[in-house]
Amino acid sequence: MWRLFALYMEKRTEIGEIGEFGLINHLALQFTGNQDWTELGIGDDTAVLDPKGNKVVTTTELLIEGVHFDLAYTPLQHLGFKAVSVVLSDIAAMNAIPTQIMIGLGLSNRFSVESVDALYEGIRLACEEYKVDVVGGDTTSSPQGLILSMAATGVVEADKLVKRGTAKANDVLCVSGDLGAALMGLHSLEREKQVFLSNPEMQPELEGKSYVVLRQLKPMARFDIIHELRELGVVPTSMIDCSDGLASEIIHLCNASGLGARIFEKNIPIDDETYLSATEFNLSPLTAALNGGEDYELLFTVSQEDFPKVEKIADVTAIGYMTNIRDERVMVMKSDSIVNLTAPGFGNS
Amino acid sequence: MWRLFALYMEKRTEIGEIGEFGLINHLALQFTGNQDWTELGIGDDTAVLDPKGNKVVTTTELLIEGVHFDLAYTPLQHLGFKAVSVVLSDIAAMNAIPTQIMIGLGLSNRFSVESVDALYEGIRLACEEYKVDVVGGDTTSSPQGLILSMAATGVVEADKLVKRGTAKANDVLCVSGDLGAALMGLHSLEREKQVFLSNPEMQPELEGKSYVVLRQLKPMARFDIIHELRELGVVPTSMIDCSDGLASEIIHLCNASGLGARIFEKNIPIDDETYLSATEFNLSPLTAALNGGEDYELLFTVSQEDFPKVEKIADVTAIGYMTNIRDERVMVMKSDSIVNLTAPGFGNS
Repeated sequence: MWRLFALYMEKRTEIGEIGEFGLINHLALQFTGNQDWTELGIGDDTAVLDPKGNKVVTTTELLIEGVHFDLAYTPLQHLGFKAVSVVLSDIAAMNAIPTQIMIGLGLSNRFSVESVDALYEGIRLACEEYKVDVVGGDTTSSPQGLILSMAATGVVEADKLVKRGTAKANDVLCVSGDLGAALMGLHSLEREKQVFLSNPEMQPELEGKSYVVLRQLKPMARFDIIHELRELGVVPTSMIDCSDGLASEIIHLCNASGLGARIFEKNIPIDDETYLSATEFNLSPLTAALNGGEDYELLFTVSQEDFPKVEKIADVTAIGYMTNIRDERVMVMKSDSIVNLTAPGFGNS
Repeated sequence: MWRLFALYMEKRTEIGEIGEFGLINHLALQFTGNQDWTELGIGDDTAVLDPKGNKVVTTTELLIEGVHFDLAYTPLQHLGFKAVSVVLSDIAAMNAIPTQIMIGLGLSNRFSVESVDALYEGIRLACEEYKVDVVGGDTTSSPQGLILSMAATGVVEADKLVKRGTAKANDVLCVSGDLGAALMGLHSLEREKQVFLSNPEMQPELEGKSYVVLRQLKPMARFDIIHELRELGVVPTSMIDCSDGLASEIIHLCNASGLGARIFEKNIPIDDETYLSATEFNLSPLTAALNGGEDYELLFTVSQEDFPKVEKIADVTAIGYMTNIRDERVMVMKSDSIVNLTAPGFGNS
């Protein structure tokens, strides 16, 4: 499914041969409308959305080669899919329905029309998966590497919008899926890259790593959970997506809601493959889950009253609860000791 | 007003000292709400917009150091202002009212907190000018240089939305302001950079270049024209903004509307300073106007019926009219000869 050095293409057409507007037209033709929210897509100064009385949510992500992805082990198709998942995950975290994305591409001269096509193949697949329209494109040259600027819009009914700062004390803290897998996928791919660089004859050895590698290369925005919650008639009291690691997201929810949180080590969902991979890399599976990032699972709170309904969703785990003690962001260990949750990104202090 | 080497700052705080979330909070605090359209700004997974029954327009721009700007002669404050103008100009071109912007920042390690502050000073000034809210921020590291990813939203009443493809034959083709100045500003700044690099003791010599330099460094999105058209009760039949040069934009309007266009050399608005600068650089002022780009003026068509009203707007010039002859995109020269309009970006053919 994947190969090292994803930039290898059989045919190479220089972008200059078809021109900037040629490239935009070439790409625009691939996208048919998935959404009746879209009134106008690619081909004018802006896209036009008819929100039909709903609220509109908007978000952006900037993905830079060498910072956010390494094309040595990231097939361009997967990168395209992942870029869409990453930006739409924020839309899911508002309990909204995604409608449209816009893509800004910065391309150094090592990228051909074929390589852009490969990237867009993944973007197109993701648009079908999430039923969104690509409604804008901006392509430009870049002095170094690939730059992907993603913007997304979505719609949400006023009474279903879910923010970060509205959790209540004693609400149940829930998380979808499992955590830490994307980081273990990254470690596995990095190790194979080093093996390959020292001996290009070697084939990548990813036996027993298929799940964690897929979680790194092709994460999913959890709209399946959003739809299940809607079917159950449950609106979470607060929600955020796990892009920076569970601990960081819990601290964000607590800060925004002016509350504390208490979670339980024994409840944190970690897949067996993540556990085994972490052990193999001499890492703590728990640290991978708490600080790994890039899992794009949903972390949300529900009222005690709604919890029995949410409990029925197969892929959701209750990991703790919110407390009135503002400075308490703690984890109860299996040993019954209590540790503080910490996360990078909140400064040196 | 401006100086070479804009990155020089008296104080230098490393971004690592305050952390990514620290930087986002630091920046978010500077923005108060300008718009009652904004329901939720910075600080959640997405921004939330209440369009109150209007259509929503969205657009993005990717600005990359070394491709779109040179910090040797672009003060960061001006860059911030310009980035907002550039992305909002597309909103103006839909006859819409701008409401919100989001900013993705990629920063190499040569940028300090103070340099980001300088950039945001310009962004803040532009937000006050255009009365928009900054509702999202994404900051990340960049392996090389500064990357600015801008996204903007706006609102427009359904009956005032103006597209590119709706011009009619015999509509009057109008342009705001004057053309070619931004290119002459760029040439002037580039020349001073070369002088400075060969002798750092030299002070920049921009006597007689203040207008063209300002047009390059601090362009305005023409919402003044949008408001005047609204006051006159005129909805253009088609519109586009002049980011790539007049000729390119005329071809876009013609292609989208399935029409031809005939413009007159004698009517093309060129400022005296642009004219003199072009002559000084041994360039044709007409070519600067037709292919220069970055002027961010509005090119639009109005019906013959509406034209007497539009004629009253001081800063609008009628330059020609649309024709039924699809392949005719021509300019009538002062000598009465006729030349075809051509523009780069439409491929090698």
